[in-house]
Amino acid sequence: MAALEAGKHVWCEKPMAVTLADAERMTAAAQASGKTAVLGYNYIQNPMIRQIGAILAEGTIGTVNHVRLEMDEDFMADPEAPFFWKNELAAGYGAIDDFGVHPLSLLQVLFGLPSRVFANLSKPYPDRPNREGGRRSVENWDVSSILFELGPEISGLMALSRTAWGRKGRIALQIFGSKGSIAYDQERLNELQLYVTTDKPSEQGFRTILSGPRHPPYDRFVPAAGHTLGFNDLKIIECHEVLRAIAGEPARVINFERGLQIERAVHAMGQSHREQRWLELS
Amino acid sequence: MAALEAGKHVWCEKPMAVTLADAERMTAAAQASGKTAVLGYNYIQNPMIRQIGAILAEGTIGTVNHVRLEMDEDFMADPEAPFFWKNELAAGYGAIDDFGVHPLSLLQVLFGLPSRVFANLSKPYPDRPNREGGRRSVENWDVSSILFELGPEISGLMALSRTAWGRKGRIALQIFGSKGSIAYDQERLNELQLYVTTDKPSEQGFRTILSGPRHPPYDRFVPAAGHTLGFNDLKIIECHEVLRAIAGEPARVINFERGLQIERAVHAMGQSHREQRWLELS
Amino acid sequence: MAALEAGKHVWCEKPMAVTLADAERMTAAAQASGKTAVLGYNYIQNPMIRQIGAILAEGTIGTVNHVRLEMDEDFMADPEAPFFWKNELAAGYGAIDDFGVHPLSLLQVLFGLPSRVFANLSKPYPDRPNREGGRRSVENWDVSSILFELGPEISGLMALSRTAWGRKGRIALQIFGSKGSIAYDQERLNELQLYVTTDKPSEQGFRTILSGPRHPPYDRFVPAAGHTLGFNDLKIIECHEVLRAIAGEPARVINFERGLQIERAVHAMGQSHREQRWLELS
Amino acid sequence: MAALEAGKHVWCEKPMAVTLADAERMTAAAQASGKTAVLGYNYIQNPMIRQIGAILAEGTIGTVNHVRLEMDEDFMADPEAPFFWKNELAAGYGAIDDFGVHPLSLLQVLFGLPSRVFANLSKPYPDRPNREGGRRSVENWDVSSILFELGPEISGLMALSRTAWGRKGRIALQIFGSKGSIAYDQERLNELQLYVTTDKPSEQGFRTILSGPRHPPYDRFVPAAGHTLGFNDLKIIECHEVLRAIAGEPARVINFERGLQIERAVHAMGQSHREQRWLELS
Repeated sequence: MAALEAGKHVWCEKPMAVTLADAERMTAAAQASGKTAVLGYNYIQNPMIRQIGAILAEGTIGTVNHVRLEMDEDFMADPEAPFFWKNELAAGYGAIDDFGVHPLSLLQVLFGLPSRVFANLSKPYPDRPNREGGRRSVENWDVSSILFELGPEISGLMALSRTAWGRKGRIALQIFGSKGSIAYDQERLNELQLYVTTDKPSEQGFRTILSGPRHPPYDRFVPAAGHTLGFNDLKIIECHEVLRAIAGEPARVINFERGLQIERAVHAMGQSHREQRWLELS
Repeated sequence: MAALEAGKHVWCEKPMAVTLADAERMTAAAQASGKTAVLGYNYIQNPMIRQIGAILAEGTIGTVNHVRLEMDEDFMADPEAPFFWKNELAAGYGAIDDFGVHPLSLLQVLFGLPSRVFANLSKPYPDRPNREGGRRSVENWDVSSILFELGPEISGLMALSRTAWGRKGRIALQIFGSKGSIAYDQERLNELQLYVTTDKPSEQGFRTILSGPRHPPYDRFVPAAGHTLGFNDLKIIECHEVLRAIAGEPARVINFERGLQIERAVHAMGQSHREQRWLELS
Repeated sequence: MAALEAGKHVWCEKPMAVTLADAERMTAAAQASGKTAVLGYNYIQNPMIRQIGAILAEGTIGTVNHVRLEMDEDFMADPEAPFFWKNELAAGYGAIDDFGVHPLSLLQVLFGLPSRVFANLSKPYPDRPNREGGRRSVENWDVSSILFELGPEISGLMALSRTAWGRKGRIALQIFGSKGSIAYDQERLNELQLYVTTDKPSEQGFRTILSGPRHPPYDRFVPAAGHTLGFNDLKIIECHEVLRAIAGEPARVINFERGLQIERAVHAMGQSHREQRWLELS
Repeated sequence: MAALEAGKHVWCEKPMAVTLADAERMTAAAQASGKTAVLGYNYIQNPMIRQIGAILAEGTIGTVNHVRLEMDEDFMADPEAPFFWKNELAAGYGAIDDFGVHPLSLLQVLFGLPSRVFANLSKPYPDRPNREGGRRSVENWDVSSILFELGPEISGLMALSRTAWGRKGRIALQIFGSKGSIAYDQERLNELQLYVTTDKPSEQGFRTILSGPRHPPYDRFVPAAGHTLGFNDLKIIECHEVLRAIAGEPARVINFERGLQIERAVHAMGQSHREQRWLELS
């Protein structure tokens, strides 16, 4: 906010803020400033995610009826890993804001955000060793299980875990439509699975599409397909989009306004867990 | 029930019955008869599912904290596939009793059934063409999204779809523990993924274990590993277990009593969906 | 041969014989008898191999220019596994007749046998422990590396190992044509990979086709796709084909005459290795 | 050579030169200059290739007895793709120098180069359309099939194709040892497959190791495992190594002297094909 007030453009790491009130203040400040204020959602920049968007837009898999999201890592999977700031309630709910915002950003660019959510947050390990000795209660939830709906037509689930041994950077996406299906896993971010019903019946199957120059802006990085973009290339694409936003060009970014919607979904999940009921999102 | 009354042993296809009252009557009849009365849950017979049980029992992946289940096929994925008996409410809720009972049977033999469930059932296609002309409203739910808990320690999700283009016989299982993880997919029923933390850090990864003579009763079918058992081999194992049950030997079967528990879980899901609240299972 | 002379039909395990002279005598005896005399090449019966044949016949991948074959198991991979009869020269060359005949049978039904071969046979372990104590020299070759041609148009390689740790029943096949490619691995015998150039450029990829009722005679075993046939199902299909052959119906079998061609290819490989030159096959 | 004579360090694209005489002159010039002269073999820089080296050095898979290499792309797979400079004999043999030098560079850093080779080069398409009209004969070989030995202990095969539809950047490597096996595919350059015999027998399987900070210098790019390095990251690592070489530090580079050995292997393959015999490499 200080940067915005100082007349600077702002590129802010996600999650936007721990409290919804802060996120709202930040959004208001951004709107007042007239400056570019965007969030660091880099996974939406993957050419394969853009390709999923193109496939959906062209109607290749028909009308979508069901979506599944998973995000898993294992950096908190060891029950004897010491308590640290991410285990404090002051750092947020845990998996949903630390992690869930990433799959939510994918939902946002592909479909828009959920219209309602139902969440069950859980603590695999109630306490962890303290660095200073003894043990300390874990204050937030490393695992989250969420049902959602994207309007009346699309049902979905989102599963998140920071304690999933063996998963290192998994963001899995499954999209089912009336004419086909899409599957994607961030651990193989250069691949996309597509099933369509227009192939000859005896030859139908999920196609493993390898990223390549046909999936812009891959072509700006390597001239040949199947040669692999990396995590940092997605960051470079993100930089480019941020610069386009600053230059007033159409840009693929999640600005504070849209980021605030993601925060609202996160807090609706938290509230749903507390109240054990569906929470509507306007 | 007629068979039981006639003094016959009974081997009954799943789901047990459409109504809970019928399932309860069948169970009472079985108990009264003193005969063997079991259900046709063949997937629990897969040597790889037994191997998962062994891995869990030996503590190889530690204490389990999270479980995910998926079951998907595409035989109702075409929105223009004609209305048939499985679309009638008289045939049950749809995905949860037609399908969900399979992953529930895996849960039952590995962990026991859920202690509570929260379900969201959905209809991808509100109506279908009638064979006699016109269209008819679909009466049950081809897609189901369920949260569950296995006691206070284990959270989970179960996703079911009969309209998942490209999925032909998927029953996917992910189990996360304090020392490792397990993943399994029925479309590759001769494989099992295991991640453990005891491997050297730079060499840790999910192992793809191929079924073989080390995973009984695979050894009764083929002497060499990696040569593939099929769906019908699982049925043969099931026959063998049914015969053992009849002979009074310890057998891996789901009898009517245990099958009734699965039905109770199914109906709790249906009720949870109607009442939009968590349903406890005793 | 005694069976043939006694007027019996004969179904004989592969390889046909250790020496070419024996294989020729067996073939002559079969021809003289007028009886059905076939070899137990079960892998050609896999519906997915038949599907590969259909894809080739329909020209879906155009004109084939290159083929790669691999067959690997690990039952001799332990250098301390004791010497046994399969290590004796009296049992044949080793990998090429114990193993190579399987991929050769696939070649035969898909393309016909090689027109010329060049082989390099190798011994990973020069000796093995004797069951009676001491060590004994291994007399044949557990690993074989072969170049071949299928007429002037198709080049190929075949790699065989009985000492390939981790491979349990791998028979991998890669076929490259002017319009597409096919890949297959026997460890996942219910899957087939197909790449065609007629898909939209941004959506091209290898399709993972799951075996199903569209791939006869899968439909005789399971009514739904993706439910997995096993090794023994292939044996059942083979039985059926043998019975058809006996009944005088068109049958997918490798009879002694065609089996003799496979033996000739094996012995040409052995001779090529000894003489370190290309061997032509008529 | 002009650059070397002008006292510059040289970083040269591979292949080194079309003729062996040129490569020798370049090497002599580099030696005379005292400058750093290295070749752009970027795939040896992949942390997963370094990890393979570490696994081999530690004896984790025992004594290696067999190696298989494949390199495939499809940029010449269309028979109607117009004739261009890479189809001219003046550009070299085709697949072996355009492509084969990459897998040879992996062999060189992991094992050293072959002690002898036997090659079969082939032309999938004898002619191609000329940009100026008509058709022109293809002068070199898009496909190559090679047998090799790495000393008396290790046999191997190398298969190369520029006409392999669907393969975009495949460099596949299989290494078999007395205690385990390694498999790798460049299209999934962040993964490594490792099979060891020390795992519990019922739980043995190929592990899919995801690249991460345990595999330096991955840690310089991303702090978390499984987040994917890309092609250009390997180029960055290569730059770093070239700079280290210039600074006189130990560096992982293939200098002109070692590059000349690769060229000698390539030309031995060409000669082997012409003379249809094994060619020894000193």
